[in-house]
Amino acid sequence: MSRKAKVMALDVGPPVRLEPDNAAYFAKCNEKLGFVPNVLSAYAFDNAKLRAFILMADDLMLADSGLSKLEREMIAVAVSSVNHCHYCLTSHGAAVRQRAGDPEMGELIAQNYRAADLPPRQKAMLDFAVKLTEQPDKIEEADRQGLRKAGFGDRDIWDIAAVASFYNMSNRLAAAADIRPNRDYHYMTRQGADAETGATAERRQGPAVAPSSEQAAARRRRSRTG
Amino acid sequence: MSRKAKVMALDVGPPVRLEPDNAAYFAKCNEKLGFVPNVLSAYAFDNAKLRAFILMADDLMLADSGLSKLEREMIAVAVSSVNHCHYCLTSHGAAVRQRAGDPEMGELIAQNYRAADLPPRQKAMLDFAVKLTEQPDKIEEADRQGLRKAGFGDRDIWDIAAVASFYNMSNRLAAAADIRPNRDYHYMTRQGADAETGATAERRQGPAVAPSSEQAAARRRRSRTG
Amino acid sequence: MSRKAKVMALDVGPPVRLEPDNAAYFAKCNEKLGFVPNVLSAYAFDNAKLRAFILMADDLMLADSGLSKLEREMIAVAVSSVNHCHYCLTSHGAAVRQRAGDPEMGELIAQNYRAADLPPRQKAMLDFAVKLTEQPDKIEEADRQGLRKAGFGDRDIWDIAAVASFYNMSNRLAAAADIRPNRDYHYMTRQGADAETGATAERRQGPAVAPSSEQAAARRRRSRTG
Amino acid sequence: MSRKAKVMALDVGPPVRLEPDNAAYFAKCNEKLGFVPNVLSAYAFDNAKLRAFILMADDLMLADSGLSKLEREMIAVAVSSVNHCHYCLTSHGAAVRQRAGDPEMGELIAQNYRAADLPPRQKAMLDFAVKLTEQPDKIEEADRQGLRKAGFGDRDIWDIAAVASFYNMSNRLAAAADIRPNRDYHYMTRQGADAETGATAERRQGPAVAPSSEQAAARRRRSRTG
Amino acid sequence: MSRKAKVMALDVGPPVRLEPDNAAYFAKCNEKLGFVPNVLSAYAFDNAKLRAFILMADDLMLADSGLSKLEREMIAVAVSSVNHCHYCLTSHGAAVRQRAGDPEMGELIAQNYRAADLPPRQKAMLDFAVKLTEQPDKIEEADRQGLRKAGFGDRDIWDIAAVASFYNMSNRLAAAADIRPNRDYHYMTRQGADAETGATAERRQGPAVAPSSEQAAARRRRSRTG
Amino acid sequence: MSRKAKVMALDVGPPVRLEPDNAAYFAKCNEKLGFVPNVLSAYAFDNAKLRAFILMADDLMLADSGLSKLEREMIAVAVSSVNHCHYCLTSHGAAVRQRAGDPEMGELIAQNYRAADLPPRQKAMLDFAVKLTEQPDKIEEADRQGLRKAGFGDRDIWDIAAVASFYNMSNRLAAAADIRPNRDYHYMTRQGADAETGATAERRQGPAVAPSSEQAAARRRRSRTG
Repeated sequence: MSRKAKVMALDVGPPVRLEPDNAAYFAKCNEKLGFVPNVLSAYAFDNAKLRAFILMADDLMLADSGLSKLEREMIAVAVSSVNHCHYCLTSHGAAVRQRAGDPEMGELIAQNYRAADLPPRQKAMLDFAVKLTEQPDKIEEADRQGLRKAGFGDRDIWDIAAVASFYNMSNRLAAAADIRPNRDYHYMTRQGADAETGATAERRQGPAVAPSSEQAAARRRRSRTG
Repeated sequence: MSRKAKVMALDVGPPVRLEPDNAAYFAKCNEKLGFVPNVLSAYAFDNAKLRAFILMADDLMLADSGLSKLEREMIAVAVSSVNHCHYCLTSHGAAVRQRAGDPEMGELIAQNYRAADLPPRQKAMLDFAVKLTEQPDKIEEADRQGLRKAGFGDRDIWDIAAVASFYNMSNRLAAAADIRPNRDYHYMTRQGADAETGATAERRQGPAVAPSSEQAAARRRRSRTG
Repeated sequence: MSRKAKVMALDVGPPVRLEPDNAAYFAKCNEKLGFVPNVLSAYAFDNAKLRAFILMADDLMLADSGLSKLEREMIAVAVSSVNHCHYCLTSHGAAVRQRAGDPEMGELIAQNYRAADLPPRQKAMLDFAVKLTEQPDKIEEADRQGLRKAGFGDRDIWDIAAVASFYNMSNRLAAAADIRPNRDYHYMTRQGADAETGATAERRQGPAVAPSSEQAAARRRRSRTG
Repeated sequence: MSRKAKVMALDVGPPVRLEPDNAAYFAKCNEKLGFVPNVLSAYAFDNAKLRAFILMADDLMLADSGLSKLEREMIAVAVSSVNHCHYCLTSHGAAVRQRAGDPEMGELIAQNYRAADLPPRQKAMLDFAVKLTEQPDKIEEADRQGLRKAGFGDRDIWDIAAVASFYNMSNRLAAAADIRPNRDYHYMTRQGADAETGATAERRQGPAVAPSSEQAAARRRRSRTG
Repeated sequence: MSRKAKVMALDVGPPVRLEPDNAAYFAKCNEKLGFVPNVLSAYAFDNAKLRAFILMADDLMLADSGLSKLEREMIAVAVSSVNHCHYCLTSHGAAVRQRAGDPEMGELIAQNYRAADLPPRQKAMLDFAVKLTEQPDKIEEADRQGLRKAGFGDRDIWDIAAVASFYNMSNRLAAAADIRPNRDYHYMTRQGADAETGATAERRQGPAVAPSSEQAAARRRRSRTG
Repeated sequence: MSRKAKVMALDVGPPVRLEPDNAAYFAKCNEKLGFVPNVLSAYAFDNAKLRAFILMADDLMLADSGLSKLEREMIAVAVSSVNHCHYCLTSHGAAVRQRAGDPEMGELIAQNYRAADLPPRQKAMLDFAVKLTEQPDKIEEADRQGLRKAGFGDRDIWDIAAVASFYNMSNRLAAAADIRPNRDYHYMTRQGADAETGATAERRQGPAVAPSSEQAAARRRRSRTG
């Protein structure tokens, strides 16, 4: 693979000195993932831009929601599949494989979610996300009503819309700047779920990396006993 | 006009008590615009989401950049035209009319920027933004190179990409939630530039409303003498 | 605004001497609108072409029909929105604002009619017009049947189809020749309905400008008393 | 073939009594073609609509122009191919076969003009007509400039645009109303040029059927000697 | 018509000596059609490629199936219409005209099958074939279920899919190599069914030319008595 | 993973007794891959159809060609990416990973080949394959000429076209029948090249599995010494 080692195709100057909150976030990435996702490194030329991106991504993917974290990653990947986004398919494909505990599921959503035998709720969720991606001008009340019939509340619909919309943004930024995914993503959670040990499972996480409380607790327990 | 008075089609519950930074921002909107843009009211059910959106929008549209504020608004409107986004065409169309001091320019970009006799730099900028909107998967190095030939640096290209990408997000969120623009936008800067007085010009501003320093200074001067 | 003062980008030679019926029509435009619409000036190099265009446009937009004149203008604008036609969005956008007595309605249809809370009849009408614009080869009996269910007779369906088809023609002619709208259109009916006086309302009319009888009568009454 | 014998799918009521100019045109169709084209019969419920359509079609296809009549028919067919219009492909396909004196050429343009080894002038002409059909919003000065480089004057460009635009209208009207072509069109000029006699060639003509002067003169000569 | 006499635009070298099965197939084409279809001549540079193509085409179009041979040709033409394939529209258009015994039906399917008053079974069949052509990624269980409701068994659905898929292949190969149809196809079965004699009907056949048993029997009877 | 264990969604009846050549091919698949690819199992209801598919796939992917086997797999995957074909992306994605000896390359082509820093020859090859997939009707001599300039001979262009066209067929058949990839494909060649032993590398092969001569020779040597 002859891909240049650069983080992206644009030369926006050297990284700035990170302000404390951003620096802490990078440290947490290194601790939990073993690396800083390249999309964050790409933003590191400007503290304000980096902060806004982190705040939005973390809130969308990790805050409380009627959608599970896996479902939000599924939306990210289904949207990125339509947009053929190399960066997001690689990084969030890894996240779906990990959160689903199923390497094949990640591939399925990245390739064509319609080929996955999804339960009706998740099928409706991805249908909406993909229509919003492909034909945002054609969304009508009937589309929202369809989600309500599939069991989603209006607050959930906001979250489906917000996540799908966010990846329509980041897919395009990654395409425009040619941001390259960290190579590690390619190799994460590639073995069947039953074959993986907790040790390897621990190192996997998408770009929204603020640990949820139970994950952090699990980490503390492990490190005490490990 | 039979449009319901609601801010959007989704019922996500009552607004929360705004935290101080968000509350201050709403106050500034009221002071400068005379109202809070409905996209912010839509987000007001959750302080974290509202903050992330404000930080990102304000940084993109008002921070230092090789792109003028008018150029960033032109990108917002050209992208929103492709996506047929009622909310953003209304609010950012008003912003282009105001920042250009030219009501016709706002209409032109909202309808079809190719019909505007734009200088080559701005034509190249909008061509890139629209390709990124319509075919993000087809962006290649040649597209970035085209912007460089039109005089943009890599740091400018990031900004073009970031603004175009952001409106691909907010267009979709507005479509999914059916966020309705404040009616005031429709009536802003509709008269020819020469017919407008400073008094009316002062009240117009897009949704990214943190005043830049020179605007704030101008405001102080005016209020002292006014 | 740096738009050249020319009527269009093509140089098709000087206008011919208008034959009496065409000259009378231009006079009526000047009387009622205060100007000759540029699409007519563009056609003025040839009396036969000008006559055919005027006859067809006037019949479609002003003759007796099961569709109101506002509805026909809504179709013109919805079709022109799909085609991003600067000329027609400007001139017929003005016509919708005027005929609806509602500046916001004109903007809504020009931006995305799906965001307008239209009654089912008008929603079905524009859905058909837009499908006919985007996918004429996919129109089937079920589409006609849908209009019948929405309350339209076959004679109305012809009119919906004929108006939508006509603007698919004139949008393309305007795009190919880069016909520029008269600047006056931009400023017509921009204030709220309640703010406008009869005096200003009188000067507004789309490009199909043969006065309907009741309008002519109203004009006569006004000029007698005025 | 189970196609109903009706002229179209819409029931717009019985034909009106034709006014003299329209009646004369129908008589001429019967004399020259042996039938009245169904698109005219479809319009025959209203004299004003019929007249406007005849005037425009005849002027576009038969009036003096820098484009030959065959070239205008080629545009009609290339546009109708994009729009998959059964009516226009049948009737104007017949016209191309007849005017080219080449049955294969009619098929080629109806199927895909890019497979015909057209001279550069005609290739440029159809490329423009098809772009105008598919992406009217993307037409730019460079497209007009391309036609000028291929040898067209601005007056010719108007005609290319006007003919292509007209068939974007009539394709859609035919689709919306499901106007069915007269069966005779299918069988016109199907044999190789060398195999046809003047007697059969005389009966072929597209829907724009006012005879040009030299055709009329030829007809007079033939009928005197015949 | 200035089309070069070459079989295709690619120069892949001279034909190889045909191996016996391929040579026998070419002989049969000459006997039954009067010529070797150009797509086979195009493949004649390589016996293995030619054999695979013949085996697949013949099996799909002539083997036992729940679909009639006419229905399979209708699929070929409907798919080729979407892809605007000059070669396949010409050769399989001829086949539909011949197998249907109806010159107009061939034109209808080549132009727009939606304009043909097809029975629901065939309408559903072509709707599926066209969706599979235009949006293969959007096919879902509901599409298969629709075919089952229209009366097709799963084995029939396989055949519909296989034929539609095959022409999506051969359309593209013909486009990429610019394979030109034999001129004879243009003139086959152009007269109304009642006007044709058995003698002319005998010479018509699509590119899949292994005679079915009843056709061969008919041929034997005719040659004995002829 | 809740995917049903069935080979595809269509129930076309039980497999037939395989004729000797087909049976031998299945045996070879089992020997070399460890399983029979599901697309072949799907075809196993009919010997003739199975044979034609095997002959064509094997010839295209394994016969002598100016294109390397890796390049042919790259075309397969790039085409399948446009068509979002789950089956082919999984099976041929595995083949690219294996033939390239580079797990990341397989992902790149499956996601968006434009993000891979391909040499100009391969970039031109995939650009052509993708245009042929998306817009077969728009292919012109200039496209072939572009491949010639990139160093391809006409015979190579045939192979590029034939492989791209074949996967436009098999993508659609897989979509229509919902053929599911063997699970093993997901796990093939997922580790970095340097980490893999010959033992694991030996078991990987795409669905076109007739061993080329040097591979067979290598296998013989290994089994003798192994």
